[in-house]
Amino acid sequence: MSKLSQKPLSQNSLTQASPVSERFKHVRATSRELGAPLSDADATVQSMPDASPAKWHLAHTTWFFETMVLKPNLPGYEVFDESFNYLFNSYYETIGERQPRPMRGMITRPHLDTIYAYRDHVDAAVETLLDRGASPTVAELVELGCHHEQQHQELLLTDILHLFAQSPLKPAYRDPQPLGVGAEPGEARFVSFDGGIVEIGHDGEGFAFDSEGPRHRALLEPYRLADRLVTNGEFIAFIEDGGYRDPLLWLSAGWADILANKWDKPFYWSKRDGEWWTMTLRGAQPVDRDAPVTHLSYFEADAFATWAGKRLPSEFEWENAAAGLSMDGNFAGSGRLRPKPAGPSSDGTLRQMFGDVWEWTRSPFSPYPRFKPVEGAVGEYNGKFMCGQFVLRGGSCVTPEGHIRATYRNFFPPDARWQFSGLRLAEDA
Amino acid sequence: MSKLSQKPLSQNSLTQASPVSERFKHVRATSRELGAPLSDADATVQSMPDASPAKWHLAHTTWFFETMVLKPNLPGYEVFDESFNYLFNSYYETIGERQPRPMRGMITRPHLDTIYAYRDHVDAAVETLLDRGASPTVAELVELGCHHEQQHQELLLTDILHLFAQSPLKPAYRDPQPLGVGAEPGEARFVSFDGGIVEIGHDGEGFAFDSEGPRHRALLEPYRLADRLVTNGEFIAFIEDGGYRDPLLWLSAGWADILANKWDKPFYWSKRDGEWWTMTLRGAQPVDRDAPVTHLSYFEADAFATWAGKRLPSEFEWENAAAGLSMDGNFAGSGRLRPKPAGPSSDGTLRQMFGDVWEWTRSPFSPYPRFKPVEGAVGEYNGKFMCGQFVLRGGSCVTPEGHIRATYRNFFPPDARWQFSGLRLAEDA
Amino acid sequence: MSKLSQKPLSQNSLTQASPVSERFKHVRATSRELGAPLSDADATVQSMPDASPAKWHLAHTTWFFETMVLKPNLPGYEVFDESFNYLFNSYYETIGERQPRPMRGMITRPHLDTIYAYRDHVDAAVETLLDRGASPTVAELVELGCHHEQQHQELLLTDILHLFAQSPLKPAYRDPQPLGVGAEPGEARFVSFDGGIVEIGHDGEGFAFDSEGPRHRALLEPYRLADRLVTNGEFIAFIEDGGYRDPLLWLSAGWADILANKWDKPFYWSKRDGEWWTMTLRGAQPVDRDAPVTHLSYFEADAFATWAGKRLPSEFEWENAAAGLSMDGNFAGSGRLRPKPAGPSSDGTLRQMFGDVWEWTRSPFSPYPRFKPVEGAVGEYNGKFMCGQFVLRGGSCVTPEGHIRATYRNFFPPDARWQFSGLRLAEDA
Amino acid sequence: MSKLSQKPLSQNSLTQASPVSERFKHVRATSRELGAPLSDADATVQSMPDASPAKWHLAHTTWFFETMVLKPNLPGYEVFDESFNYLFNSYYETIGERQPRPMRGMITRPHLDTIYAYRDHVDAAVETLLDRGASPTVAELVELGCHHEQQHQELLLTDILHLFAQSPLKPAYRDPQPLGVGAEPGEARFVSFDGGIVEIGHDGEGFAFDSEGPRHRALLEPYRLADRLVTNGEFIAFIEDGGYRDPLLWLSAGWADILANKWDKPFYWSKRDGEWWTMTLRGAQPVDRDAPVTHLSYFEADAFATWAGKRLPSEFEWENAAAGLSMDGNFAGSGRLRPKPAGPSSDGTLRQMFGDVWEWTRSPFSPYPRFKPVEGAVGEYNGKFMCGQFVLRGGSCVTPEGHIRATYRNFFPPDARWQFSGLRLAEDA
Ligand SMILES: [Fe+3]
Ligand SMILES: [Fe+3]
Ligand SMILES: [Fe+3]
Ligand SMILES: [Fe+3]
Repeated sequence: MSKLSQKPLSQNSLTQASPVSERFKHVRATSRELGAPLSDADATVQSMPDASPAKWHLAHTTWFFETMVLKPNLPGYEVFDESFNYLFNSYYETIGERQPRPMRGMITRPHLDTIYAYRDHVDAAVETLLDRGASPTVAELVELGCHHEQQHQELLLTDILHLFAQSPLKPAYRDPQPLGVGAEPGEARFVSFDGGIVEIGHDGEGFAFDSEGPRHRALLEPYRLADRLVTNGEFIAFIEDGGYRDPLLWLSAGWADILANKWDKPFYWSKRDGEWWTMTLRGAQPVDRDAPVTHLSYFEADAFATWAGKRLPSEFEWENAAAGLSMDGNFAGSGRLRPKPAGPSSDGTLRQMFGDVWEWTRSPFSPYPRFKPVEGAVGEYNGKFMCGQFVLRGGSCVTPEGHIRATYRNFFPPDARWQFSGLRLAEDA
Repeated sequence: MSKLSQKPLSQNSLTQASPVSERFKHVRATSRELGAPLSDADATVQSMPDASPAKWHLAHTTWFFETMVLKPNLPGYEVFDESFNYLFNSYYETIGERQPRPMRGMITRPHLDTIYAYRDHVDAAVETLLDRGASPTVAELVELGCHHEQQHQELLLTDILHLFAQSPLKPAYRDPQPLGVGAEPGEARFVSFDGGIVEIGHDGEGFAFDSEGPRHRALLEPYRLADRLVTNGEFIAFIEDGGYRDPLLWLSAGWADILANKWDKPFYWSKRDGEWWTMTLRGAQPVDRDAPVTHLSYFEADAFATWAGKRLPSEFEWENAAAGLSMDGNFAGSGRLRPKPAGPSSDGTLRQMFGDVWEWTRSPFSPYPRFKPVEGAVGEYNGKFMCGQFVLRGGSCVTPEGHIRATYRNFFPPDARWQFSGLRLAEDA
Repeated sequence: MSKLSQKPLSQNSLTQASPVSERFKHVRATSRELGAPLSDADATVQSMPDASPAKWHLAHTTWFFETMVLKPNLPGYEVFDESFNYLFNSYYETIGERQPRPMRGMITRPHLDTIYAYRDHVDAAVETLLDRGASPTVAELVELGCHHEQQHQELLLTDILHLFAQSPLKPAYRDPQPLGVGAEPGEARFVSFDGGIVEIGHDGEGFAFDSEGPRHRALLEPYRLADRLVTNGEFIAFIEDGGYRDPLLWLSAGWADILANKWDKPFYWSKRDGEWWTMTLRGAQPVDRDAPVTHLSYFEADAFATWAGKRLPSEFEWENAAAGLSMDGNFAGSGRLRPKPAGPSSDGTLRQMFGDVWEWTRSPFSPYPRFKPVEGAVGEYNGKFMCGQFVLRGGSCVTPEGHIRATYRNFFPPDARWQFSGLRLAEDA
Repeated sequence: MSKLSQKPLSQNSLTQASPVSERFKHVRATSRELGAPLSDADATVQSMPDASPAKWHLAHTTWFFETMVLKPNLPGYEVFDESFNYLFNSYYETIGERQPRPMRGMITRPHLDTIYAYRDHVDAAVETLLDRGASPTVAELVELGCHHEQQHQELLLTDILHLFAQSPLKPAYRDPQPLGVGAEPGEARFVSFDGGIVEIGHDGEGFAFDSEGPRHRALLEPYRLADRLVTNGEFIAFIEDGGYRDPLLWLSAGWADILANKWDKPFYWSKRDGEWWTMTLRGAQPVDRDAPVTHLSYFEADAFATWAGKRLPSEFEWENAAAGLSMDGNFAGSGRLRPKPAGPSSDGTLRQMFGDVWEWTRSPFSPYPRFKPVEGAVGEYNGKFMCGQFVLRGGSCVTPEGHIRATYRNFFPPDARWQFSGLRLAEDA
């Protein structure tokens, strides 16, 4: 299952600079732009149970505003279509029955145009509500809805990539671009950190999901982090050295996956006439050796690190290093939609901490000390996914700008490969 | 797997009254009409591995003409799109690689409009070819292509019904109609046949598929056939008598299906407030007790017959009784798209032999004596489906007019339920 | 599921020469001898769901006498152990709940010695009953129990072979023997038959299972049968010619099995240093090129016949040819426990029709005209396996002497390989 | 897979009081005693892929001494049987091919008596080696072999329980005993701990497995632990309150298991005439309400804690509380072989920390800081199971005396239920 799409959401407080109504308009418009290249059929098909149709993402995020914001807070609001509560509820048990997840691709009707009309209907109502001067509760819920929608924007892109990869025509979501020819990123250098007692988790200023808190102390041993992500070129060396054929490099469960599924390269890769190609949102493209490797499972990230004589960082090591760094990076808004080479390092500081690819950490997704689920539908199942998953940090090239934080905890099962997931090496100091 | 869509085709001779070009135009126009109620998304989604998208049916039948008729016979013919040979080949090994069957629903592109343009392109070329005065070989191939397309017309309808049944909205393929209120069909009467040595199989006059021949002698014991199909009302009596809970009524493999899948009613049925409803091509509708029961597996048909103290007919018993009867009936062209009550019998003759529902026979699908596969791609795998399937006879309410014959052998595995399949009782005389 | 072990039994009359009590003693002693080489552990383990432990076969056949003969007919009979009715009932729904088939290997207790004590207890009671002068009903039931036990004797041997084949030690059920060096069997010759209307099925004189009747007329076209079985040497030629790699030779369902299970040789075969070896009841042995090929699925038998330009016979063709032939052959009593080369033909008559290997026919297992299940537990489910199986004829090298008949119909699903199953070629005349 | 049986082993040093040869004799004799109630068949059958036959446990532990101790260190040692290296290697890739784990139950030969002879042969050789005055290396390897064998002693008991539970006869491994009637344990009281920086992990004095180290500092928030284990009576209250039917209490993956497997009570429980019964090593027995609940999955332990308004402890919280406590408890040597009621508390100290049932912690099984796999076959795959499992602490009623430590980390996947696994509640202070 896709876990991101099932993450329950909550909010500690609202202190973003921009007024919530501007933020709302921006987020909603962005989703519409993401849908623009898609036909009704593109937006309807579900390519695997873990993925959802684009139409569903566009409708479900709208349903969220309708259900959580409008129904309880806008007197006289008229529901767009009563059947949508069944069709577009994701997993909220208290809200009622819903279309089974693996059957989301059966919804050929309503037409995508109707979903856009649904969006317009809800947008107008939310704007009416906000124009009246939103209460803090409403503002918080709208803020929450915006962050929720941004999560689904990323999923819409990863899920469309998966769909298009199943077609022999390998259609491009956006027109191909020439690959920039840049300087090689050079050898990774390792940056040292002292460890000790550090503060981890969100401090309550601005929005965060509930699993990012409570902020608490953690004890770290001294450690070192690579100053850039692992590249495709480095991963090709792993492949050529027989990395996929040596059981000693792999976790037991990962080796079972290799045997069962015949994994011998990253997801979406194929070889044509001796050259590595990969499926991207810009169609099939040659693999760029200087760019970060992506679409790796946890097992592949871990095996690569073992092969390299290093290890994956813990999520606390990563967060401690990221705290205070600028959150610039290669995000969805750049329109590149592929990871970008790091370029040469001038000063030995950490690069690519945000954007490009989600970084697998060695940390299982577990609750922080004193974590407590919040009450009500919004926080219905706060801890329910804290089993069998690993934390990823830092966002990717399909994460919306402004959606990421140093404390942000993404999570997927160790065999998930269709997200933009890669790795950064770490070691004990 | 859907077997109908995989049936190889051949042709003995061509003696239909209408010139082949008229027949071609008619069949091609009919497919276009069948597609008219469908959106691009409706036509793209594959609801299960056994079903194919409407877009695929519309394109594959066109590919058949392009590949079998135009490429070898129309000099200078320009292929519409080279990639379609991969996308729309069904299972012809000698013609090359193809999109795996369970992945037919991933083809969101080309758009349905492009498939219609493809149809226009091929239609024009075939008409050009025929206008030049077709050789007998070409005429035979076009005739074959027309029969092939008619098979896919039926599948298009059964597959769309399956797709729409997966949606909680239960969309109607065509607008609902009021159910006619007619006279009750009355008790079934049994018509007696003497048996003896009879001739079975197609005699070579006019078109037939290869498995319908060679015509040969068969020996029948005296037998009796019901003068009408089993009705929904009769099947409800079976249900209410605990038919789905008594292992003694069932074949061992059918009982295993009941336990594994919790079958307790015909496919597409559900109960609302104590009333039986069923999904149809005209949306969800109350079950009509006087109409023939349909969407039964072989196991259910056989269990019903055992419960009724009767048995299913053999395919030879059926064919012997059907020979010489008029082929009138409730077919796709009537637009009813549902089985129709028999009405009261006046004279004790067989009714509903053609149309309404395919009739399960007790005969496994096996080769006739001296059957030999034909040479070449057209007859590539003639006997390859003769294992694990049972023969059905007589056509259904979604079979195109003029497509059925007394010798026509349809076949499906015993657990298939999404076709319009029902039964007629038989007994030893 | 193993179907043989589930075959319900019935009996038409009793006209065997030997008194039933002698027959009973002989059959019961034979089972005991078959168990002699087995340890308690050998007799307890179930190697796959289709196979049963030897302990179960030895107990179930005893339970059959206890339940069907003693309980209803011997006043004062004391049941050996009440729990055995649950443990050793195979599938009789009317007799009650039972140990699920795939869990038969969990019965480590009672010990095999207890099962032998159970056998002694029941044997003594049956002999007491017979000594009192058995009524015809009792005699018929004992006769039925003897035939039932003979079926399980064959299964005990095929199931032990399967178990021992799973061990890397490849233990021998009986000591290895030197392979006889004989004359080569020479090319198969084809014997012609006229066809026409023939009588098929058991005539009611002596014992037969219910599916062997009623005797009825059938119409056969002229045909020809090979005068011997297909040999290992001929099958090696098929392998070497790429038979397992050519989809055009295979039924569609068989080709799917090849792809899914990577079949590329008969069951139990392996290659050591370029030589073919096979597992046998006498341990791992080199493949004897002159001996009949065995442990083939229906799919492999059919593909071989297609490759050879021939076909499999129908069961009626086989029975018509076998009628009146002597039933001599290589059966279990010979102790050879492997198929035997035919030796050179002197006179062009049919050889190896009985014993050696069961011969796959092209006939699905279907009821004969006017077949009716008998009443009561004994005939509880007479037709329930008549779906998805093919008929085999003639018995094998592990069939007990005196158990086979020209009318005997064995049946297995087309993918079954652990029985001694092979083929004889046929063609249209 | 059973993970315990796959745990690689290592050793830091050897400072146990008793000489290693005495320890060796004691451990080896204990295994022999554990095998005594078992027949050859009992010891041969594998009841599920996660379990191993007793014969295999008895042979594999012997193979470990033969392979790791004797072959490299006793010149002239004669291997008992060359085939045993294939049969009884568990998972050591560097040592070679082995019998696939799910096929361990196919080894009906050698007989159990031969395995005992194998044990005698190896015991004599090890004693010879030790009599000569063992080098520290040899002494360490023998010590390691003893701890390895103790792990398999526990597995032998849990696996035999699983096997006997599959039989409708519910055989008793040891004779049933009357349940003691004691005082009720009374309400659980919670003991407070301050938290802060604590030392976790093994300090290198005496034997430990490698995953218990390195010893390192950890930071704990203040917390409280229940002074006894959760009882059957408390778990019955959870059941009666609908605990198995409320999705809000469950982890998402656990709820999926409930739906798929219809879990509604602890493993091995059943209801007879309104009373709860459970399978035990002393046969089927009534559930003792005062005794600790056992055979729970992680999901059930977690759901119970959520229902109770508490949580599971982390493994560090548990270890911090256990450090310095006496390791007395109800272990295998007591012969009770069932968890034991706590009895009334007099002083509010922690009870049942060792023995009775393994206590699920909320901690995923992860490497400690600076953990490094050791070199060579013994430590071949040290971290390979650190994915998808949770840590359990404290040992159980089938753990051998002297095998447990406060630092001991057991681990199983969250759906494992056939071990003696239960829980102790915790909460934030
Ligand atoms: Fe969502
Ligand atoms: Fe077709
Ligand atoms: Fe039987
Ligand atoms: Fe071990």
